Amino acid sequence: MVRVGFEEMLKTLEDLFLKHRFPDDRARLCAERITENSFDGIISHGVFMVPWLIERVTRGSIDPSVEPRPVGSLGVIEQWDGGGGLGIYNAVRATERALEIATEFGMGCVALKNTNHWFRAGSYGWQAARSGAGLIAWTNTESNMPVWGARDKSVGNNPLVVAVPHPRTPIVLDISMSQFALGKLRLYARSDSELPVPGGYNDEGELISDPGKILESGRLLPIGFWKGSGLAIVLDALAAVLSGGLSTAVLDSQEEERNVSQVFIAFNLEGFDPSSIEGQVEEILGHLHDARPVDPGQSIRHPGQRVLELRESNRRDGLMLDEEIWESVRRLYRSP
Amino acid sequence: MVRVGFEEMLKTLEDLFLKHRFPDDRARLCAERITENSFDGIISHGVFMVPWLIERVTRGSIDPSVEPRPVGSLGVIEQWDGGGGLGIYNAVRATERALEIATEFGMGCVALKNTNHWFRAGSYGWQAARSGAGLIAWTNTESNMPVWGARDKSVGNNPLVVAVPHPRTPIVLDISMSQFALGKLRLYARSDSELPVPGGYNDEGELISDPGKILESGRLLPIGFWKGSGLAIVLDALAAVLSGGLSTAVLDSQEEERNVSQVFIAFNLEGFDPSSIEGQVEEILGHLHDARPVDPGQSIRHPGQRVLELRESNRRDGLMLDEEIWESVRRLYRSP
Repeated sequence: MVRVGFEEMLKTLEDLFLKHRFPDDRARLCAERITENSFDGIISHGVFMVPWLIERVTRGSIDPSVEPRPVGSLGVIEQWDGGGGLGIYNAVRATERALEIATEFGMGCVALKNTNHWFRAGSYGWQAARSGAGLIAWTNTESNMPVWGARDKSVGNNPLVVAVPHPRTPIVLDISMSQFALGKLRLYARSDSELPVPGGYNDEGELISDPGKILESGRLLPIGFWKGSGLAIVLDALAAVLSGGLSTAVLDSQEEERNVSQVFIAFNLEGFDPSSIEGQVEEILGHLHDARPVDPGQSIRHPGQRVLELRESNRRDGLMLDEEIWESVRRLYRSP
Repeated sequence: MVRVGFEEMLKTLEDLFLKHRFPDDRARLCAERITENSFDGIISHGVFMVPWLIERVTRGSIDPSVEPRPVGSLGVIEQWDGGGGLGIYNAVRATERALEIATEFGMGCVALKNTNHWFRAGSYGWQAARSGAGLIAWTNTESNMPVWGARDKSVGNNPLVVAVPHPRTPIVLDISMSQFALGKLRLYARSDSELPVPGGYNDEGELISDPGKILESGRLLPIGFWKGSGLAIVLDALAAVLSGGLSTAVLDSQEEERNVSQVFIAFNLEGFDPSSIEGQVEEILGHLHDARPVDPGQSIRHPGQRVLELRESNRRDGLMLDEEIWESVRRLYRSP
């Protein structure tokens, strides 16, 4: 393990992206979001994905210079075309725009087509919460789970973020519709650990907890069996019809995952009584934290709480990182 | 088992509600929705709940004469007060109003406070889909699941509906955040059946499949463990802050579940290209139905498909119903 400082990672990633001809503002923005994701404890959707991003950009499969643009609108819903550009940049811009519409009209939606992997769903929820707004946003993906009752993977795990703002303790939920996100499975497999609960099927169709075998079969378990499968289906359908973009059905016909569809719905809560909303959130969290833990040594956490704790300690002490992961990023920078 | 016709149930329920002094239009509307729910195969959230409704109305805990009304607005978000009236009526009116706002502005939201059990989430999704619109709607409930890591129940299972319209095959997902809805558990317990997968904890904190023991402990299993627990938390928080209504934390301090909070977000899809949306939905469903089933005798179903099949056969042949359930409703009508 190595200990990496926040500024050190930020600078390393920014330099790396500049070297790969990201426009200045995007090199900075992507470096910031990826560093934040990592220091929030979500390495799987942070620095761990950098080699993947560089590979895609180098190959020309993601064009960092493309600007997303509005291509249609219907009242407070805007359709945007991501042009196959940087997923993080497109999603940040879409969130900003949804927040703008919400500021004016109470609620705003940007439906974004032809975009790429946005790394971490939670990133956009925290962005909204920072500006005092609520957010529901999700992305579709190529398939990585069997639809309920099927052998073959046929639905995506379509990560979803829901954010409820609060000045100190926003509630930010970031989940994919599989019991474990793909990046999490890869990290578990890397450290040769069993999953804490079954996370997918092997090729024989048995429920298993071995992350390597699940990655091989590509058959992730939907949360709640038929329920997560159903949720993934409707999220995909709504993303495709609202954005006019590709559904998982079409993503699956491509050689690699690209041109995914995403939805960002922002709620302007500041127009209601902000102090009463603060009070409500505190009442909700108080109620949860009052529950008796199963393990008396463990306290109950709400969605987003662990992130805030890790953010604080990691920024203070530096982030402990698998040496190989960090070295793979630094190698990319040094390579010609 | 008895076989009951659609018109027979509709008439029986309408007469029963009129007898209990529901205003004419509401007696009709509630009878229609409850009969539809039952004939769609969702008896647990249909006729099975009628004795509960009558008991609450008789006791004065639900007032069938109250009219829900708008109490605030922020652009395309309207806050409504359900006044402790009929949950079905309030939710139908809220859905109608969200659809109206969406017709004008692309998207519309009604956040409804002080309402009562809406019976079946799916009912409002089908309502939206019938008018060619998309819908995301949910309700909070008093707690019936432990928050992840806790012994005690502390979050609701907060049923959610997501609908994507199509003239013949809309996708309508209706799920609660528990592996099994409470009504489903009661029906399983009634027929002395084991659950197909574990559905909750016993008093010792062990995962079990015995519906009766789960109803006793009141500790339902969230879908996907920590994920469903988190989803329930953010749905509750968003419902409470958008409506200015009660969260689960406050619902739990009441003697019985009342004055719940609900959110209805409608999407007007007809402003986009309807034929292309139809095509997208068909492409998505085609892809799912092409997946190889685990059991070669079973076909893959999408959310809403089973409902359409049951609706057709039940309306044609009559609904097969547990004699005791039907008798309990008819007894209510005959009782003075």
